[in-house]
Parts: sequence; structure tokens; C-alpha cells
Amino acid sequence: MLTEPHPDEEALSPAVAAPGLAPPRSRPAPRVAVVGATGAVGAELIACLEARAFPLASLRLFASARSAGRRVRFRGAELVIEELTDESFDGIDIALFSAGATISRHYAPLAAEAGAVVIDNSSAFRMAPEVPLVVPEVNGAVLAGHGGLNGSGGIIANPNCVAAIMTVALAPLNRVHPIRRIQAATYQAASGGGAAMMEELRAGTAAALDGREYTPAILPHPYAFNLFSHNAEVDPRSGYNGEELKVIAETRRILGAPGLPIGITCIRVPVLRAHAIALTLVFDAPVSVSETRAMLSAAPGLRILDDREANHFPMPSEVSGQDDVFVGRIRTDLGDPTGCSLSLFVVGDQLRKGAALNAVQIAETLVGG
Amino acid sequence: MLTEPHPDEEALSPAVAAPGLAPPRSRPAPRVAVVGATGAVGAELIACLEARAFPLASLRLFASARSAGRRVRFRGAELVIEELTDESFDGIDIALFSAGATISRHYAPLAAEAGAVVIDNSSAFRMAPEVPLVVPEVNGAVLAGHGGLNGSGGIIANPNCVAAIMTVALAPLNRVHPIRRIQAATYQAASGGGAAMMEELRAGTAAALDGREYTPAILPHPYAFNLFSHNAEVDPRSGYNGEELKVIAETRRILGAPGLPIGITCIRVPVLRAHAIALTLVFDAPVSVSETRAMLSAAPGLRILDDREANHFPMPSEVSGQDDVFVGRIRTDLGDPTGCSLSLFVVGDQLRKGAALNAVQIAETLVGG
Repeated sequence: MLTEPHPDEEALSPAVAAPGLAPPRSRPAPRVAVVGATGAVGAELIACLEARAFPLASLRLFASARSAGRRVRFRGAELVIEELTDESFDGIDIALFSAGATISRHYAPLAAEAGAVVIDNSSAFRMAPEVPLVVPEVNGAVLAGHGGLNGSGGIIANPNCVAAIMTVALAPLNRVHPIRRIQAATYQAASGGGAAMMEELRAGTAAALDGREYTPAILPHPYAFNLFSHNAEVDPRSGYNGEELKVIAETRRILGAPGLPIGITCIRVPVLRAHAIALTLVFDAPVSVSETRAMLSAAPGLRILDDREANHFPMPSEVSGQDDVFVGRIRTDLGDPTGCSLSLFVVGDQLRKGAALNAVQIAETLVGG
Repeated sequence: MLTEPHPDEEALSPAVAAPGLAPPRSRPAPRVAVVGATGAVGAELIACLEARAFPLASLRLFASARSAGRRVRFRGAELVIEELTDESFDGIDIALFSAGATISRHYAPLAAEAGAVVIDNSSAFRMAPEVPLVVPEVNGAVLAGHGGLNGSGGIIANPNCVAAIMTVALAPLNRVHPIRRIQAATYQAASGGGAAMMEELRAGTAAALDGREYTPAILPHPYAFNLFSHNAEVDPRSGYNGEELKVIAETRRILGAPGLPIGITCIRVPVLRAHAIALTLVFDAPVSVSETRAMLSAAPGLRILDDREANHFPMPSEVSGQDDVFVGRIRTDLGDPTGCSLSLFVVGDQLRKGAALNAVQIAETLVGG
């Protein structure tokens, strides 16, 4: 465990803030907690805080009793995982939650009551009207109305990974030419199901290659060289699964387009950590490929990789570990005889922009704002 | 090599026709050749001929000089691969080609001139007006106008794998309610790139799991736990790749719907041998899920796997090695506010219905018709 006195009282520990990495801010560096520190997103949250030199006075890591006592390296120091309890949030300014909706429903209100701003990666509060749902590049302005780090607490929701990645690519177009309809098919990586699902993919694939029997640990079917409709519960009325309904509702909310019709099929593929989305967007009038490229290349958090001649487009192998969302295959949709539709292929790292990076960017906005 | 006298002259070899497997037909059993016998589709062609007890008088297997002399088991006998030459087609009634478009362009006309009916799995002749492009369940009737096994030869084209699998699911709906537009995103298996690409996926994945360096043999990027836009050349004007343009043109031709607007994104995923397709179909009026299920369940070559409660839908792991095309995720598309669109998820074995099985079914239609 690495906890330092709050900078109100004392200088930052050199173990926490290497020289030159924490620029002077208008407010003291916050005391940060990560809840769910041993998960795939939790590990990435810690990595993002380190890589981005996030200014912090202290960092505490929480997980279940089972993981308590495990050690994690952070900025040259060794942090010890603590068991999460109702009292864990005393003296915490920002609590980054990534331990599932059940944990968030219980502990996030406790953390907020204790004065922390919760940035919650679960789906628990994403549709609550009083909770902002934020992708900083897209609707970071909504944070201006939030109390911020004044000790009054509050909860901010981090979106579903597909919604976060997708809206980064949609927003720059939607601002200029309102999108009227969206059709999406996803290619979602194992990381969206957590560290256990990534291990299921690795272990199942190793067994398949060796010709060994393998009993899937967390899925009712093999994952090796296989794909499957997202395992979220299916709504019996609409036939859409919970993942698809989340993406629809959250994309509308983030874009500020309440009734936007979105059709989507969410598929899990045997990829480790970057999500891909085949998108078709319908506009009121034709939007040219060159104008689309211009709008996207000027947008924050986006990179265009659209080399038709070299057949080089976004791929998980190149996007994994990257902060930017990549866009390629930009073309006029041949399925729309009016010429008013565009097709795109979008790939983003599920653990970065789809989860941890976006949460840390929200925290940066709060700290810097 | 297993060549037998033509049944005009002598009885079938017991090695070729096991008792009870070759029902009496109105015409003598044909002398069959497989060109490209050592490829992924070639091996599956041989397996289909055996599994379906295709009535044949003889079977000869051709490949490049490099593979000549290799032995293949067939119905308890051992066949020797022969080198393909201009003279290979003397005395052949049906030549099943699966050795790529370059080989087909040279040898298929020679085989047809020698009196064989060529069933060509390559793209070489699929759009030639005089060559039927056939999925037997969908447009098998066009074979009635073809000369057939009367020694006059001719070429019949076997469609692109995505087009074959997709049209099996589309045709039963399109017959009752004409489809006005199609939006598709594919999840294509390694097998579509041949045995070498399947081996690339296996070898690259084994190396990735072991943490070994691996230089891709046939791709410019890793395939292990990765996906990528289909490697067919991209048309610089439209931005669509060759695979997508094939699927569009062939689907229109097989369905007999020349101007049907089709938008499609073709993606290769790290799956070994079954293709999946997320489809959205636009009709003139709403088509209910229950009517769709009824139309699809009565259709040949199709199986519905659409268990919303158990979250059980078509997957490559269950469809690989199956003859039927599987359909699930049948639902009204939420992306179309008019309610006139349906979404489906279709999975079919690329080597079976997407290639070898369809070719053998064409041959069966010729023999039985």
C-alpha cells in the first residue's frame, strides 16, 4: 500500500510523482483509489495513471479479500492490494471503480458520501439522469455542471466499451452532419469479459492446438478459433442482447441524440484486447469520403488508417495498447441507393479508450478543470 | 490413382462403390476428376464425394507437379495424385475445379472441350453470361438449360463462399417478400484463404501463446488473435475490396435481382473454417419474426438455431463440419424506424456449403436430373 499525506499537508512523495511529471495545478493533487485493481481494466487503470503521469497525492488499490495482500508495482514503488470495505473511502478524492455493477451499486454511493468523486466503469449508473455519462472528446463539457473535486462527491459513469470507441468516431461527423441512423456489427475482444475471459481464450486455444481436451471455465462453449453472439442476456421481446441495448442507449446519450435509431449485432471474436466495429451511417444528404477524412483527421483521439492501395486498415494487432481510436475503410455505402450513407471500420483498444483510458481522461478533466 | 473402366463398359469397382451406396440412376455413373486435390477445398471435395456416396465410375485427382505422387484414401482405396496437364481430361465426365482462377482460366476450357462438365470453384467464370452460377437450393433450376452430362461439356460456376452461404438464407425470404436492400458484415474464417492460411493461423497462434517470434508466411501482418479487412485488392474508386464486390455481384445474380443494393464489409477473423455474417434486410413492409422463422424452417439446407433464453445461436464451433447453413438472432432491426427491416446472424461451413458441398450438390443435380 502506498498512501501519502494529502498535499494540503505535505509535499508529494518522490515515489509517486517523479520530477517533471506532475505539472503544477491550480488545486492539490488528488488522493486516488482504484476499486477492482486486480481485474483486466483495473491493471490498465494503474498502467494509465503511471504512463500519463497522472498527478496524485496517493494511490490505494482495492479488491476482494481473496486478492488482498497481492503486490503491484507503481512508479518504482510497491503497492499492496487492500480488501474493499465500507470504510475504504475516507480521505479519497477520486475513486476509479471497475469491479462490476454489483460492487458499484453498493460501494459507489458510499464513496460519494465520503466525499470522493466516483468514476464508475460499470453499467450501474450509466442511465441515471443525475449521473453524467462521459467520453471527454465527445461530451466532456457536461462535466462542467458536475460538482468536481470539492469534497461534495458524486458519480460519473464511464461508458460501455463499444459506445466509447464508437462515439469518438461518430461525434466529429455528427456535429457537422447529424447522423440519422446507424447500423453496426461488432467484433469484440476477450478483454471485454475481463481477465478470466482472456485466460479462457488463451488456455482454450493452447489446448485446441495441442489436441488436448479442455473444459471451458466461464463459457458454455469453446472460445478457441470460435466466435459467438455476445453472452449478455437476451431481451425476449426485442431479441437484442443486453450489450446491444447498452450500446444503443449509451450512444444516444453520449451524442445527445435521444431517438437515434441504431441497429447492432454484438459478436465476441477470438481476439485478446481490441474491439472492431463495422459501421454504416445514414445522413440527410451525401457526405463525401474526402470531407469525412477531413472531419475525422481534425478530431481528437482519432487516427485515420485507410490505405486502399496497401490494403492497410485498422487491426487489433496494431491498435492494442494504443490510446487512439483508429478509423479506416471509409467509403460510400453501396447498400444505400440514395448515396446518403457512409461505411467505416473502427478499431479501438477495449482496455484503453473502451475502459481505463477514458476513465483516467475523465479524472484528468476534473483535476485540470 | 484409381481409374476404373467407364460403367458403359464394365461394372463399378467395389473399391469405389461400396454396396448400397450407389443407388441405380437413369444414366451411367460419371467419371470424375478433382483439380486442386491437395488444397483445403480439394480435400473437402474428396470427403464430400465419399460421405455422400456420390455415384462415380472413377475418381482421378490432379494437382501441381509438386504434389504429384502423394496418396489420398478414398472409400478404402488409395488414390495417387497426378500432375495436371492439358491432356488430363480425356474420359472425364465431371471435373471439379478448385485450384484458383489462373488454373481455371487455362484448364477449364480444355476440360470442357474434352467433353467434361466443369464445376469451377474459382471466380474465373462466375460472371460470364453463358456460365450458370448455381446454389442448388436457390437457383438449381438454371441447370435445366445446361447441356449436362451429354459429352458436350460446359462450365458451371460455384459461387463465392459468402454468397453461397448468404443466399441459402436469403432466398426463402426473398421469394415471398422481395428484399429491397441488404447490409452485411462478415466474419470470415481462415479456410477461405486455403490450407496455407489455416496453417498460418495455427502456427502464428501457437507461437504467440509460447511467446516465440513468428514471421507470417503469407500475410503482411500477424493473424494470431487478430482480425483484418479481407486481403482482396481494394477498388480505388469505390473503396470496396474484391471479395465484397464479388459477394455483391454474385448475390444479385444467384437471387436474380440485378440491381439489388448491397452494402458489405468483409473481415477475416481468427476462426478456422466457418464463416459468419451479420445481416440486415430491408423489405417493403414489416416482416414478422414468427413469419421469418416459418419461412426459414421450411427451406432446404437451412437450420434455425435461435434460442434467446439459452443465449444459444449459431457459432463456428458447432457449424464446422455441418452441411446446413445455420440462422439465428432473428429480430426486427432497431436501426430502421419504419420496422421494415430484419436482422439475422448466419453461419455456414466455408469448406462445405461455401465451397465443396455446393459443388458436389451441383454435380448431384446433373447426375440425378
